[in-house]
Amino acid sequence: MLKKIILTLLFCPIFAFAQQKDEEIIRKIYDDALTSRASYQWLEYLSNTIGSRLSGTPAAEKAVIFTKKMLDSLGLDRVFLQEVMVPHWVRGKKENAKMLIGKEKTVMNVCALGNSVATGAKGVRAEVIEIQSFEEMALIPKEKLNGKIVFYNVAMDDKHVSTFTAYGLSGKYRRKGAAEAIKYGAVGVIVRSLTTALDDYPHTGSILYDEGSKALPAVAISTIGANLLSKKLKESEKTGKKVEFYFETFCEMLPDVLSHNVIGEIKGSEKPEEIILVGGHLDSWDLGDGSHDDGAGVVQSMEVLRLFKKNNIKPKRTIRAVLFMNEENGLRGGNKYAELAKKLNEKHLVAIESDAGGFTPRGFDIDADDDKIEKIKKYQPLLAQYGIEQIKKGGSGADIAPLKPQNVILIGFRPDSQRYFDYHHTSTDTFDKVNIRELALGSAGIASLVFLLDKYL
Amino acid sequence: MLKKIILTLLFCPIFAFAQQKDEEIIRKIYDDALTSRASYQWLEYLSNTIGSRLSGTPAAEKAVIFTKKMLDSLGLDRVFLQEVMVPHWVRGKKENAKMLIGKEKTVMNVCALGNSVATGAKGVRAEVIEIQSFEEMALIPKEKLNGKIVFYNVAMDDKHVSTFTAYGLSGKYRRKGAAEAIKYGAVGVIVRSLTTALDDYPHTGSILYDEGSKALPAVAISTIGANLLSKKLKESEKTGKKVEFYFETFCEMLPDVLSHNVIGEIKGSEKPEEIILVGGHLDSWDLGDGSHDDGAGVVQSMEVLRLFKKNNIKPKRTIRAVLFMNEENGLRGGNKYAELAKKLNEKHLVAIESDAGGFTPRGFDIDADDDKIEKIKKYQPLLAQYGIEQIKKGGSGADIAPLKPQNVILIGFRPDSQRYFDYHHTSTDTFDKVNIRELALGSAGIASLVFLLDKYL
Repeated sequence: MLKKIILTLLFCPIFAFAQQKDEEIIRKIYDDALTSRASYQWLEYLSNTIGSRLSGTPAAEKAVIFTKKMLDSLGLDRVFLQEVMVPHWVRGKKENAKMLIGKEKTVMNVCALGNSVATGAKGVRAEVIEIQSFEEMALIPKEKLNGKIVFYNVAMDDKHVSTFTAYGLSGKYRRKGAAEAIKYGAVGVIVRSLTTALDDYPHTGSILYDEGSKALPAVAISTIGANLLSKKLKESEKTGKKVEFYFETFCEMLPDVLSHNVIGEIKGSEKPEEIILVGGHLDSWDLGDGSHDDGAGVVQSMEVLRLFKKNNIKPKRTIRAVLFMNEENGLRGGNKYAELAKKLNEKHLVAIESDAGGFTPRGFDIDADDDKIEKIKKYQPLLAQYGIEQIKKGGSGADIAPLKPQNVILIGFRPDSQRYFDYHHTSTDTFDKVNIRELALGSAGIASLVFLLDKYL
Repeated sequence: MLKKIILTLLFCPIFAFAQQKDEEIIRKIYDDALTSRASYQWLEYLSNTIGSRLSGTPAAEKAVIFTKKMLDSLGLDRVFLQEVMVPHWVRGKKENAKMLIGKEKTVMNVCALGNSVATGAKGVRAEVIEIQSFEEMALIPKEKLNGKIVFYNVAMDDKHVSTFTAYGLSGKYRRKGAAEAIKYGAVGVIVRSLTTALDDYPHTGSILYDEGSKALPAVAISTIGANLLSKKLKESEKTGKKVEFYFETFCEMLPDVLSHNVIGEIKGSEKPEEIILVGGHLDSWDLGDGSHDDGAGVVQSMEVLRLFKKNNIKPKRTIRAVLFMNEENGLRGGNKYAELAKKLNEKHLVAIESDAGGFTPRGFDIDADDDKIEKIKKYQPLLAQYGIEQIKKGGSGADIAPLKPQNVILIGFRPDSQRYFDYHHTSTDTFDKVNIRELALGSAGIASLVFLLDKYL
């Protein structure tokens, strides 16, 4: 006990000095991020000049070239590409859809779900059956589902404060809905868009067919469209009027394409072999320009390196920004990165992912042992004045998850989630939806955490 | 000590039970707020059907009638109006402005500042002198300012995490710039718009002339315009080319008009004489439709009462929603309310104001004695899971400030501030900028705080 007191007294002024120094450095990081327009301009180029950048497209490769060039301009110790083969799914011609009740035809906004097979020009037309859960579907006699279009109308639950929680709960109907419905003889799938907004934009996103199984064409319908279709189905129970749906999609899975992860790093001065990674994903869905998903995460990762260089912060460990390819419909970039890390015997201490939009930061979720989490939580008071309130146990991100077996502390950056699903995977995910200050506060928050992790972990 | 332990043991299960009950009620408040569209629809009507509602205009009175009608529909114990005479400033015809350098004429976006006198059709044309502070202006020889247009180019400081802090620091040049410049013989005033955005929208806001002094016409210029004007002024130091500015404004202060505060209340069951107030302001500037400033605060205040009624929460004290008139350019509603409260010998325990936009809630600032603040801070753990992170000492709001001498605990609702000044007092403060979930989380947060204050204060 006495020893502890003496040690405390001994180190107290030094610690106070260190803390003051930390506060100054973090203040410098924030001042720079909040006044520089560099990362916002990078995002503007990614969004408005390059635009949507689905894996395998020329635009995705333009994003590789552009971000590599920008990283090259920062005077880093190393900038390089990692080759990765990616799927190349294309939407093709714009989808058409109609709800048909007797002679009444209503045009509906739909979009093919990512990786889906197409109906082609002949389309698919059938009666619709609304489903609220896989459990419910399993109880319906198979002949009632045979030849039908299955309509998964599972709304995201508005009552969850975190919209990601609601997304997690409803998301399986998009991902697995087609694979399930085919088992009952359905001929097509309509999925209610995964959004908390009530509007007329369909939201895409990837689906997974069971291996070896026949594939069913699948579309997302807007939330307004889903409500209307559901209302008409309820009415038909009374009127007996048949509700049919027609849709045609022209999407196609082309052969895999060679693409790249983009990597830039500042070598550590004391432990260069230990890596702290911060990353986002370069590819985006094709409907919008991917400004929030995940242009924001890409430029924030690059901005962390810019902030370190510009403010002459020399890390002990190697700080690496990784811009992953193909998060949306394959995760090939994330898997390849982890595979190579293992092969090259690289030691990743921490990996941080920003893939939840460029909104005001709220905190970080940590996927690690409790003692590590408790240690990192102690940094929070240094970040509180900047609005980083919640550092807690939680999930991380898709692209860094493959590193988990390599005993890496995985951290997910958590900006405010309220607006994310207004734009997610749809045509309104565009540059004008990003606020320069919210984006910058995210970059500064991540950079500050990286600074503290590098120094104290 | 022993007594304390016994008391703790004695009350512990009861307290745990009470806390669980509180948690359930707060959960009900949030569930209702997040799934009801009522307050969003009220705001839609205020914004899109009524539109901008500057004090003294017919639209402002339509807002009085509409909100009273909505409060009437809630089955409250009392809904009433308070008469208040308000100023009636109108913008008149759209402003025109040009920067003139030799033969080069550049059209500039400006707007008259609220309460400003007009130039009329003849306009004002003069050389421009850029000013960075009142202190700097005081050091300039008077003859250099005489006959000039003074251009206050004091940007909001992006480095402040709270944009309200930056607004507080730069705001005096808008409010007092004209009153100061006239002392030096200036003929007009241009103020850099108070916004963190770099765009081409001028932001209005009220100005104060010194009583008895001659009044100087004053306009706001967009931030892009301000940067251009400043650049040209710098160039002119080298080239010697004179930079002139011309603007014409047609605004007018008409005679005062009879208007109203709108009030609705639920009577307290045990202490009906003690009032907990929650309020926002009905009037808005004329350029946008006042969705964030302060349609959001209006519907959130009404929503608090709706949430109490709908969920059968019976308060001990009287809960009152007050929709103030004329916050923007006179504060007559707030002053009248406090005056009548004193006259009627009403006891206000707490007043909460929502006038910082309908964005994601971050916390509450409290203007009260430290012991009161410490007590209220203890509620925070009950609100943490809903993102209410900061309950702390701070300012409150303009409309409730006149209650301060009556020994009232004043509380300002603090949503995230990053986007507020993108829209504040300009044509982009429109309904589409409000996210339904962010608005609802604010209502629920305020209602939950009111519930806890009523029960535990």
